[in-house]
Parts: sequence; structure tokens; C-alpha cells
Amino acid sequence: MSKPVLHTLLSPRLLDIYDISNSIVVVIDVFRATSTIATALYNGAARVIPVDTVEKCIEIGNKVHGITAGERDGKVIEGLAHGNSPAEYPRSLVGGKTLVLTTTNGTRLLHMALNNGAAEVITGSFPNLSAVCKHLVTGNKNVILGCSAWKDRFNLEDTLFAGAVIDRIKEHFTIHCDSSLMAEQMYQLHKEDMKKFIRTTTHWHRLASYGLESDLEYCVTEDVADVLPVYKNGDLVRG
Amino acid sequence: MSKPVLHTLLSPRLLDIYDISNSIVVVIDVFRATSTIATALYNGAARVIPVDTVEKCIEIGNKVHGITAGERDGKVIEGLAHGNSPAEYPRSLVGGKTLVLTTTNGTRLLHMALNNGAAEVITGSFPNLSAVCKHLVTGNKNVILGCSAWKDRFNLEDTLFAGAVIDRIKEHFTIHCDSSLMAEQMYQLHKEDMKKFIRTTTHWHRLASYGLESDLEYCVTEDVADVLPVYKNGDLVRG
Repeated sequence: MSKPVLHTLLSPRLLDIYDISNSIVVVIDVFRATSTIATALYNGAARVIPVDTVEKCIEIGNKVHGITAGERDGKVIEGLAHGNSPAEYPRSLVGGKTLVLTTTNGTRLLHMALNNGAAEVITGSFPNLSAVCKHLVTGNKNVILGCSAWKDRFNLEDTLFAGAVIDRIKEHFTIHCDSSLMAEQMYQLHKEDMKKFIRTTTHWHRLASYGLESDLEYCVTEDVADVLPVYKNGDLVRG
Repeated sequence: MSKPVLHTLLSPRLLDIYDISNSIVVVIDVFRATSTIATALYNGAARVIPVDTVEKCIEIGNKVHGITAGERDGKVIEGLAHGNSPAEYPRSLVGGKTLVLTTTNGTRLLHMALNNGAAEVITGSFPNLSAVCKHLVTGNKNVILGCSAWKDRFNLEDTLFAGAVIDRIKEHFTIHCDSSLMAEQMYQLHKEDMKKFIRTTTHWHRLASYGLESDLEYCVTEDVADVLPVYKNGDLVRG
């Protein structure tokens, strides 16, 4: 039996190049949406509702009595209760609760994947690397590792996570895709110096100026929140 | 005085993310359009006219008494005289002549760059790496290293050439761009084993099945056709 096919998507803008029907799409937004989603669910949140605007965040937050969360430019958005840092969501805060999270890049790709007919959408980040890999191997479907990028621009942190997944599961898939080959090699090149290397990326410079260094280091730490966020009927829940 | 800014574009689909006015756009289509263009001009062609369709190639070829050239799937297109291999264009054939070349990815990006207001368009490939670098350093303008990609998909060979340029000229530019950082690292990783490494790329597999191995190896050889193709009024000419 032939193996399922795996591709790496480097920017949401390139999504329609790929046939994603019958595929699992892994939405990757390492700094920091998908790292925060994994952490909140790992710490016992009942669900995370990803929304693309502040207005929806407030509206849905009120309706479901959820914790509203979101940042722009490193600051909590006016009208919301919390920011976009995984460190803000310990069990004491999120246990059993609904988190309504507004992000830009990650949420956008998630909705695009659904609109383009993905069979299944999950989210991936270094904190839940193993859970993602295990699910993809047992899923036996084609896979799109979807980098959320930054305003459609290629970014390294999402690519490195795609590379980490490929490094672990490549023997289970057919991979003829230069994006995947590059992602895997960049991961192999930097897996031992990840916390140092990410300091050279553009996103690090953007966020570190807001004092988020320890957040960013957490976001490239493997398996510290090893849960599988699966999208079901508008919610991300533990799979 | 601040240095000009350099970005690497990984797919034509992402072009409109960048402000390319007042920029030099380097169109890169390593396998094989821009390698062939450099070689034809190096071997004395008066000019190369890049066109996007076979019909235009024949029409313009007739009008200017030029050599018509183009391939699809590794075969010379019916109605045209030659293919898209740099080896087909020795001085004895092209000296003083006009080559009318139809390609898909490279020509498309070239026209997009012009339509988006690029200040200048040149073409780059490993055979003319030094000429490109010298021009960019003396040009003192912002630079877009434009990978033509393959049907909008990221490819490694164009990215490696962008990395080679960055490796040589980075101290003259401001570079805050993960695409450029990745391209440079991939080039550094493979500059010593380039002819071996490109055998792992998707485009190699696509073209090598047509018996084009020696062509592809030529296309990653530095400075064997060190001339600068500059776009002027519809023609690529020696700069």
C-alpha cells in the first residue's frame, strides 16, 4: 500500500496550490498562538475558541462566559481579559474553562483550511510535538504542515516545527516537496541550538522588544504540553 | 547613510507583499531559464526576448528573424527551433543573434516585477553569480532576490542561488528577513556538495528523467557565463 503524502506549506497565501481534501492540516503558529492553545488545553481548559477579530472575541466570550484573550503588538487588547502568552494560562486559571482567543495569522490559516475542505484540522507547536506526530502516523491520511507565517511572509519558527515533525515521522510518508526537505534540514541544523538560533529570527526581534524572551524560549521547548488540539464545531478540544 | 534593504521572495505568489518600487529585482530560474539566458548572452547573443507563450515566441521570432526556443516537459516545443538547455547555445549558433525564449515560471515573474513597478530587472543564475553580485553592490538600491519557483511552489535551486548572493554581499545590505536567513544557511550547508545535493530536489527528479543531468550540473556551476542580463524595452541584453 502506498504511503500517504506529506507537504509543507510555507505561507497561507500558497494554500490553494495544494489539494487538501482528505488531508489533515496542522496549523502551526509557534510564536505564540498554537503554543498557547496547547498549553491551555494541557492545563485543563475545556476548549479554546479561535476567532479572528476582537469584536467576535468579546461577543463570544460574553455568550459562553469564557476567558477572552488576545494581543496586538505585545499588549493585551483593550476589552479583553488576557494576552497571548502561554505563561498566562496555568491550571488555576483555565481548568474547566473556555478560552476565547483572537489571533491573526494562526486563526486565519485555520479558517482557510476549513473553507478549502480539509478533512481534519489540528494545531501544532513544539510544546505538543509528540502528540501531533503520533496522531499523524496513526491517522493514515495525507498531511499538510501549515505554517501560519507572519502576514503571509515566510517565517523560520513555524518552518522549524514542520521540520521537527518531518524528522520524526518521515518514514511513514511519501515526501517529494522542497519545502519539506528544507524544513527538515533547517531543523536538523538547529535542533541542538534552538534557543540560541531563534534569537536571530525576525519574529524574535519583533517580540523580544516587548520583554517576551522567556515566552519565546518556552515556545520552542518540545513536549512540555503534550496534548492534541483538534478542531470540532468551532472549538479546539483535546483529541 | 543607511544601507539598502534586501529581501528574498520565495514564490511569485508572494510578490505583492513587498514594495518593489525603487528596487532591483533579480529574477532567478536556475533550472534552466536564467542559466540559459546568461549563457546565450555570454556566448555573444545580441539579446534574449523572454515571452510567456509559444504563439508569441513564433510571432516575434518571425518578426525579428530570431532563434525560437522553448521546452515543455523536457522536449522542444513543436514549431520552435530549439529547447531550453544552455548547452544548445554555443557562440557558433547565437553569436550576434536574437534568441526568443518562452519559459513559464521565470518569464512570468519577470513580467510581474515590471508590472509592480520594479526600478530595474536583471536575471541571475549560478553561471553569472559574480556579475549579479557586483551589480547589486554598486547599484545601491533595495534588492528583491526573486525565486521563480515552480508553479508557485517553493524550490530549492532558486533559493540556493539567493543564498549564494547573500553569502557574498550581505555586508552591503540591511537584511531582516527569515527567507534570506534561511536561503543563506541552506547555501552554506550545501555549497561544497551542491552537485550532489541538487539530486535530492524535486525539480532534479522532474528533469533528470529526461536525461538532463549534465545540464542541471552546469546550472549550479558558478561563474561559467559571467555576464549581466539586464531587461530593457522588452529585451534582455548585456548590462
